[in-house]
Amino acid sequence: MGNDFIERADKGTSVALLIIDVINKLDFPEADLLKRYTQPMAENIASLKKRAKEHHIPVIYVNDNYGMWRSDLNQLIEKTKESPGKDLVEALMPQEDDYFVVKPKHSGFFSTPLASLLKYLEVNTLILTGVAGNICVLFTANDAYMRDYNIYVPSDCSASNEQEDNEYALRLMENIMEANTEEESKLDLVEIINNAVKERVKTAYEG
Amino acid sequence: MGNDFIERADKGTSVALLIIDVINKLDFPEADLLKRYTQPMAENIASLKKRAKEHHIPVIYVNDNYGMWRSDLNQLIEKTKESPGKDLVEALMPQEDDYFVVKPKHSGFFSTPLASLLKYLEVNTLILTGVAGNICVLFTANDAYMRDYNIYVPSDCSASNEQEDNEYALRLMENIMEANTEEESKLDLVEIINNAVKERVKTAYEG
Amino acid sequence: MGNDFIERADKGTSVALLIIDVINKLDFPEADLLKRYTQPMAENIASLKKRAKEHHIPVIYVNDNYGMWRSDLNQLIEKTKESPGKDLVEALMPQEDDYFVVKPKHSGFFSTPLASLLKYLEVNTLILTGVAGNICVLFTANDAYMRDYNIYVPSDCSASNEQEDNEYALRLMENIMEANTEEESKLDLVEIINNAVKERVKTAYEG
Amino acid sequence: MGNDFIERADKGTSVALLIIDVINKLDFPEADLLKRYTQPMAENIASLKKRAKEHHIPVIYVNDNYGMWRSDLNQLIEKTKESPGKDLVEALMPQEDDYFVVKPKHSGFFSTPLASLLKYLEVNTLILTGVAGNICVLFTANDAYMRDYNIYVPSDCSASNEQEDNEYALRLMENIMEANTEEESKLDLVEIINNAVKERVKTAYEG
Repeated sequence: MGNDFIERADKGTSVALLIIDVINKLDFPEADLLKRYTQPMAENIASLKKRAKEHHIPVIYVNDNYGMWRSDLNQLIEKTKESPGKDLVEALMPQEDDYFVVKPKHSGFFSTPLASLLKYLEVNTLILTGVAGNICVLFTANDAYMRDYNIYVPSDCSASNEQEDNEYALRLMENIMEANTEEESKLDLVEIINNAVKERVKTAYEG
Repeated sequence: MGNDFIERADKGTSVALLIIDVINKLDFPEADLLKRYTQPMAENIASLKKRAKEHHIPVIYVNDNYGMWRSDLNQLIEKTKESPGKDLVEALMPQEDDYFVVKPKHSGFFSTPLASLLKYLEVNTLILTGVAGNICVLFTANDAYMRDYNIYVPSDCSASNEQEDNEYALRLMENIMEANTEEESKLDLVEIINNAVKERVKTAYEG
Repeated sequence: MGNDFIERADKGTSVALLIIDVINKLDFPEADLLKRYTQPMAENIASLKKRAKEHHIPVIYVNDNYGMWRSDLNQLIEKTKESPGKDLVEALMPQEDDYFVVKPKHSGFFSTPLASLLKYLEVNTLILTGVAGNICVLFTANDAYMRDYNIYVPSDCSASNEQEDNEYALRLMENIMEANTEEESKLDLVEIINNAVKERVKTAYEG
Repeated sequence: MGNDFIERADKGTSVALLIIDVINKLDFPEADLLKRYTQPMAENIASLKKRAKEHHIPVIYVNDNYGMWRSDLNQLIEKTKESPGKDLVEALMPQEDDYFVVKPKHSGFFSTPLASLLKYLEVNTLILTGVAGNICVLFTANDAYMRDYNIYVPSDCSASNEQEDNEYALRLMENIMEANTEEESKLDLVEIINNAVKERVKTAYEG
């Protein structure tokens, strides 16, 4: 179809940064529990996102549609403006060159184009961030693991209603899914990119 | 999550109208062949859409993303404004209460939330329209058939580059997928709704 | 196709019992940890299976293929005969009227016909049992929850390498997925069936 | 898990041969129409299968379960022994080192582990054969095309109830899915393997 439809994409790194459910009104019953942890988390994700952009790692917002089947990104953001989630959204406002995948359920892979987008971007390594660490981040990690992605879940870039639950989810991802859960400042993006690119070359010569 | 996020949806009819790939620049190599047929088709779809709305049948635009992974509906429409597809898009411009599903490949079910949306809308019967009849309409019908939907593909609401190919695709859907292919004016929406609702009741008492 | 191919199936109850990964050699590195818990678990599952059969609840073995892409059930069982998993397999030997779904990854829904089989059996409620509670049972529960099944995970019918991990997985399923985790002897199958059948009728009149 | 569970697989060629729905009783209403074409087709598939084995191309039987959710390959074959499909099955009897994927619907990819198996075998190129050319072969080709496989559908290795329908399906696969439809004797397996392997290397250096 018409070529001028096509956008330039950052394909070189084999790595993508997922930011999960941060476009959020934070007005559900136990949101106050979660809000204790969202500000430092948002700062860490913002820092990681800035570094990712510098290294041409594509950034993908993976966000619940909250039953708004007719809405696009802008309408979702609009809805959060007068909500308790306002600060979180403002701290992590999507930019024009970010990708956006709307999900109807907990996992970013369930009933969404995420797998197709990652294939198009030639990604084999995912960095997962966002809320809630023990629900949507965990469900997305499960599905990523079954699809053979390498997984990073920086321990200070996700949050759950209870700190204990967030830690258990991290432990589960580390033990079961071989996820790296070091904190954001420890992530060496150049090394992560190099490993991801190397794996693609290796794969090609296995057969 | 926050209840005021939720939109009212038309759930009563068990039927949905799909309009496939009409947000289209029609600038691919053989588009002139297809353009011979799009105007009468657009009129028939517009007529069917009007009738569907009167009967509270949800209308779902299912549209290729044309490689624009970052775009939403408005950006897609914007891109068609100076294109050969302008007339088609204007004739079938989405309205605020229409649904919109972006697909990366040919079938509306592949790597999209369409199945989840149809489950949410409690739909068991689909009316398929749009372009191309022998590609994206056919691929979507295949997937609908495997998922046990009742299928209507009104013969004058789809178009292909060659009339012969459109007719063969209709014959395939009629013979293999038990699709009803009567022309738009013959579709009795009240009867279709009644059959669809009846089937749901019957299903409930089978067990 | 030929009708005498078709088997009679237990469709009436809307409930299915899943037995996960018990056809197992138990020869992986940490299997000795898991083996501490498999005997009482197997007795509880056997008891539940017996009761399920009496109430015509279909029983589905959902089992890893262990990389044996060419194997069927009998070959898998054969392979366990001289293995540390022998006792577990013998305690829960599949019968001729049990169903069998082979899975290549952790979730019983991923890349398998399980969803189709459950649709065919008209099931809306799942009882999950087996090993490991914090891996394949949990991953399968995640996917069941996103597909809107009601979930029971009797606390004494699953096992993990560490008791603590099994308990955390149960807590996760209870808190996040609204799973019922009462122990096997507390499960009132008649009540579970009645609730499952009632839900189907209710659904039919919602629209 | 236990390593001696793992089978040696032919992974080197990046190509797989799919044989669709030939384990078949051929006792459906219009089977006599199809039977006019199955004998020469079976000879061509048998010839192609023999050549594929010589080049270590994995052979995958992809077969309807005919509603026999509890059955394995041997039971399916047993059921055909006194049926009109006897000759077809005998001509193409699966061997021990063939793979076998049971499908509940028309496409070999729908609700089956086929995609996982092909990933495991590192395949990017499929040769599709079997019955019916305009139903299950076509539906499987659709899904293969959306998943970016290179497709071969040798024109004399599939059959439909009507010759005209088989030809139209072949034309559709050739025009829409860029399938190669040359007859079996024209297929140069060495060249197909070389192209498939080359593509994998190319992919690795694109990023």
